[in-house]
Amino acid sequence: MLDAKLVTKSDATQQTIVHLSNQVAIGGQKVVIFGGPCTVESMAQMEAVASSLQTAPVQAIRGGVYKPRTSPYAFQGMGLEGLEILASVRQRYGMPVVTEVMAISQIEEISAYADMLQIGSRNMQNFDLLKAIGQANKPVLLKRGLSATIEEFVMAAEYVVSHGNPNVVLCERGIRSFDPYTRNVLDLGAVVALKQITHLPVIVDPSHAAGKRELIADLSRGAIACGADGLIIECHPEPEKSVSDARQALSLPDMVQLVHSIKPVAEAVGRQVYEFQRQLVVA
Amino acid sequence: MLDAKLVTKSDATQQTIVHLSNQVAIGGQKVVIFGGPCTVESMAQMEAVASSLQTAPVQAIRGGVYKPRTSPYAFQGMGLEGLEILASVRQRYGMPVVTEVMAISQIEEISAYADMLQIGSRNMQNFDLLKAIGQANKPVLLKRGLSATIEEFVMAAEYVVSHGNPNVVLCERGIRSFDPYTRNVLDLGAVVALKQITHLPVIVDPSHAAGKRELIADLSRGAIACGADGLIIECHPEPEKSVSDARQALSLPDMVQLVHSIKPVAEAVGRQVYEFQRQLVVA
Amino acid sequence: MLDAKLVTKSDATQQTIVHLSNQVAIGGQKVVIFGGPCTVESMAQMEAVASSLQTAPVQAIRGGVYKPRTSPYAFQGMGLEGLEILASVRQRYGMPVVTEVMAISQIEEISAYADMLQIGSRNMQNFDLLKAIGQANKPVLLKRGLSATIEEFVMAAEYVVSHGNPNVVLCERGIRSFDPYTRNVLDLGAVVALKQITHLPVIVDPSHAAGKRELIADLSRGAIACGADGLIIECHPEPEKSVSDARQALSLPDMVQLVHSIKPVAEAVGRQVYEFQRQLVVA
Amino acid sequence: MLDAKLVTKSDATQQTIVHLSNQVAIGGQKVVIFGGPCTVESMAQMEAVASSLQTAPVQAIRGGVYKPRTSPYAFQGMGLEGLEILASVRQRYGMPVVTEVMAISQIEEISAYADMLQIGSRNMQNFDLLKAIGQANKPVLLKRGLSATIEEFVMAAEYVVSHGNPNVVLCERGIRSFDPYTRNVLDLGAVVALKQITHLPVIVDPSHAAGKRELIADLSRGAIACGADGLIIECHPEPEKSVSDARQALSLPDMVQLVHSIKPVAEAVGRQVYEFQRQLVVA
Repeated sequence: MLDAKLVTKSDATQQTIVHLSNQVAIGGQKVVIFGGPCTVESMAQMEAVASSLQTAPVQAIRGGVYKPRTSPYAFQGMGLEGLEILASVRQRYGMPVVTEVMAISQIEEISAYADMLQIGSRNMQNFDLLKAIGQANKPVLLKRGLSATIEEFVMAAEYVVSHGNPNVVLCERGIRSFDPYTRNVLDLGAVVALKQITHLPVIVDPSHAAGKRELIADLSRGAIACGADGLIIECHPEPEKSVSDARQALSLPDMVQLVHSIKPVAEAVGRQVYEFQRQLVVA
Repeated sequence: MLDAKLVTKSDATQQTIVHLSNQVAIGGQKVVIFGGPCTVESMAQMEAVASSLQTAPVQAIRGGVYKPRTSPYAFQGMGLEGLEILASVRQRYGMPVVTEVMAISQIEEISAYADMLQIGSRNMQNFDLLKAIGQANKPVLLKRGLSATIEEFVMAAEYVVSHGNPNVVLCERGIRSFDPYTRNVLDLGAVVALKQITHLPVIVDPSHAAGKRELIADLSRGAIACGADGLIIECHPEPEKSVSDARQALSLPDMVQLVHSIKPVAEAVGRQVYEFQRQLVVA
Repeated sequence: MLDAKLVTKSDATQQTIVHLSNQVAIGGQKVVIFGGPCTVESMAQMEAVASSLQTAPVQAIRGGVYKPRTSPYAFQGMGLEGLEILASVRQRYGMPVVTEVMAISQIEEISAYADMLQIGSRNMQNFDLLKAIGQANKPVLLKRGLSATIEEFVMAAEYVVSHGNPNVVLCERGIRSFDPYTRNVLDLGAVVALKQITHLPVIVDPSHAAGKRELIADLSRGAIACGADGLIIECHPEPEKSVSDARQALSLPDMVQLVHSIKPVAEAVGRQVYEFQRQLVVA
Repeated sequence: MLDAKLVTKSDATQQTIVHLSNQVAIGGQKVVIFGGPCTVESMAQMEAVASSLQTAPVQAIRGGVYKPRTSPYAFQGMGLEGLEILASVRQRYGMPVVTEVMAISQIEEISAYADMLQIGSRNMQNFDLLKAIGQANKPVLLKRGLSATIEEFVMAAEYVVSHGNPNVVLCERGIRSFDPYTRNVLDLGAVVALKQITHLPVIVDPSHAAGKRELIADLSRGAIACGADGLIIECHPEPEKSVSDARQALSLPDMVQLVHSIKPVAEAVGRQVYEFQRQLVVA
């Protein structure tokens, strides 16, 4: 990967730290956990999520307001109304939020509400979007494409960084394969490889990989033991009523239980977890 | 695929015909052949291509001016200057042209020069681009994503058609797989399936699938025998000097020879090829 | 593939011809069609198959008597009784037969009844079986493994030939991939590549690739147009009652119709088909 | 997986324990580590391996004497001489050994020397071999096929158990995919799923999955954190001189270091590791 001049490591210790807030950083000694629903559906839903996750503790909230859906007739997200819900819980619970940007025209709007801009799997090689987000002043969560090679993934990050934005976090979220039992195959070998190749933080989304909630806790612990810098996990107050990805969302109690189980695994590989801080404030 | 209300066939005989010019239509009795380089490089290059292909006869010219490249440091295309080259050969040789649209902001510009707008594999699920191109008044060549299922591909077409543009041509161009011998695996079973599921024309790009020029002629004949409505093939005056995809470009004499070999195969499955017409004029 | 000393071509014209009988050879000017059920079920079934296919004309009969089944509780084949049925129709209809060998211990027995020994996909790298069949005195039909690379497939043939049996026919039958619409992905690019790399005949099994009978006729014509030396197609007197692979078996009238449609395609690429000969006799 | 009557769990707590010796069992509270070279090459090599691994501590030794090689011209293994080397180190170092059985004819011979019989990936659906090993009186290490679905893998185990041998350990070793960076993709989601579906122990081979030694330690820790019952890892006194799989073999010091790092991870998920016992004796 000779061509990835900016994102490859010059030596084994080089490591980018991406700051989401004064309290929360990705890529350092502490592993970071993002939680939240696939789709922002209502203020009540996000209240339930944030109040539960705040004390887990989970460090940041995820939730889609612009949704890439296979069908044009499926719910496409709440848009601006959803952003306002995110902003409200972000403020009141002191938790940074990440949400997906699907188009260049959304970057400015979403940047006004969110702490981190997600590029989804389907847009990992939407190069014009990568260039534009390279000029945004928010950290980027770049998800691996459904069948992107490790090299293509690294080069997608190079697009963003070479256009001016060094704050990129990579996210492995499963690759497409032949087995119908899981939705995708979580490629933890790629996580290990990416940690060796690049100095960017690497987190793992076990929810989209597994596609089945009963697989997520074990995969989450496995990801941390492999050296991932964090997790992003789907959870919902009423998983079976989720408007999307219902089969893979954890209930909030299961999410809290999972978060607690991460601590000893992180420590077993020389990392720490974030402890609860009552007075978290998002700038 | 119950949800693809607009692009699925109501009965076996329903068939959309997409017109590129007064003379050239896709989806009818005649199979259509597109030819040209991966990337527009110069007027001399495109002159050589058009003058050779016009009498092959090839019916339409392909050539990229905005190029999706894995590396941000690779040549990104000639842009507007390339469009003007395409417009010039289009006018003088009477051949419609297709070129790739990578971003919403390019649709209007490219529509002023090209007869057909290509959505590349990496953007097959760039849903905002699909919606925008659904409002363009040019036919669309929609390439299958690198690991898109047949259902996802059909639904991507449904995005375009449901947003107002019925003139969509599907293009199978190989899917990602495990064998390093070929670049991708040409999935002619998908072509057969798509012809049965949708009323949209389906063409085949054997060049990107094979990735090796010596495989292309046989795959092209196979595609037509399977029922494809046409072919889009990379060729170059000096293949080994091509700025991209050099390994898969045919020389112009090889391209002409391939075109001639299509006629008996098309006739063997009840189709015809376009014969040379001296006075082709693009509107 | 430097290591495949015996099966790679020394020049473009080198071509092995494998003789199934005095009348039927694979790899020459004429394309060969095998037909028959997945599983031999009864004398009545095979009578119906042979009498219908004889005049299609199909040149050889397939039918499994030892069956590789995913479940140990699924029907494992008729064994010796099935071989006797095959031998009976072979004799009376003058059509050579091919059937699968799953174990070294079956080689001698099956060789006494069949004209060609099939190595199934699941055994393509059962190297001890390959070595043993390399010492058999019957032609071998070697099916590509579910996810075998082209190189692995060629080397599997090299195992057989290097152990003494030069009469190997390769069979592409679809590779495992991500799309649930088809059972496997028929890799006609591999057929083209194999014809260029090796001097062995290459035939195509569209039935196991497609997994759906409505896709088979188009894929069969595509395979011949790509340069395949023949086809092996599943058909059954009552497809919906087949004990295995019911969804992909053609009815006998559909099979006859398909065979007739192959002739013009073969001729379009410079090949011929076998014409019906009343007095076929298997030695 | 309704059909896997014998190997699916009747309730969440059902768990088979497979005993390799009086001291070593797989599937219980303690995770088990197998180590050793891909191929048994000499007594000196195996002496170096066993003396180093005994105190790591590693609980069992792996080493191939019959080798499935892609090329018929590659070294096919030491055969009986290799078995005698394995038996010698097994006796002197008190460590059980596992080695691969490639053919029915080898079962009796290998059973006289080894404590566990390995079915390799290429033979996972060699059903006659599965049936025969179902009648052997040694535990079986069943490796997942290169592109076997979880259901096919479970059913392969069902073949062995339904033919009389309940002592089956499943081994995930990476599946074939598109990325050339790693040799295969380690599918830890399958490990989690298999632990939920079956009561059989499940271990992980990170060496064949990764294909690069620098990835193995992190993947090993990840596997244990996911709930695997053990690991089987390739190591060699002089990795770069290994006759096979040189790129993925760990040096013996790296192997020892890896073993030590497993303990805290195992404990973090409620498991233990085996501690060194000077007086291990293999029955």
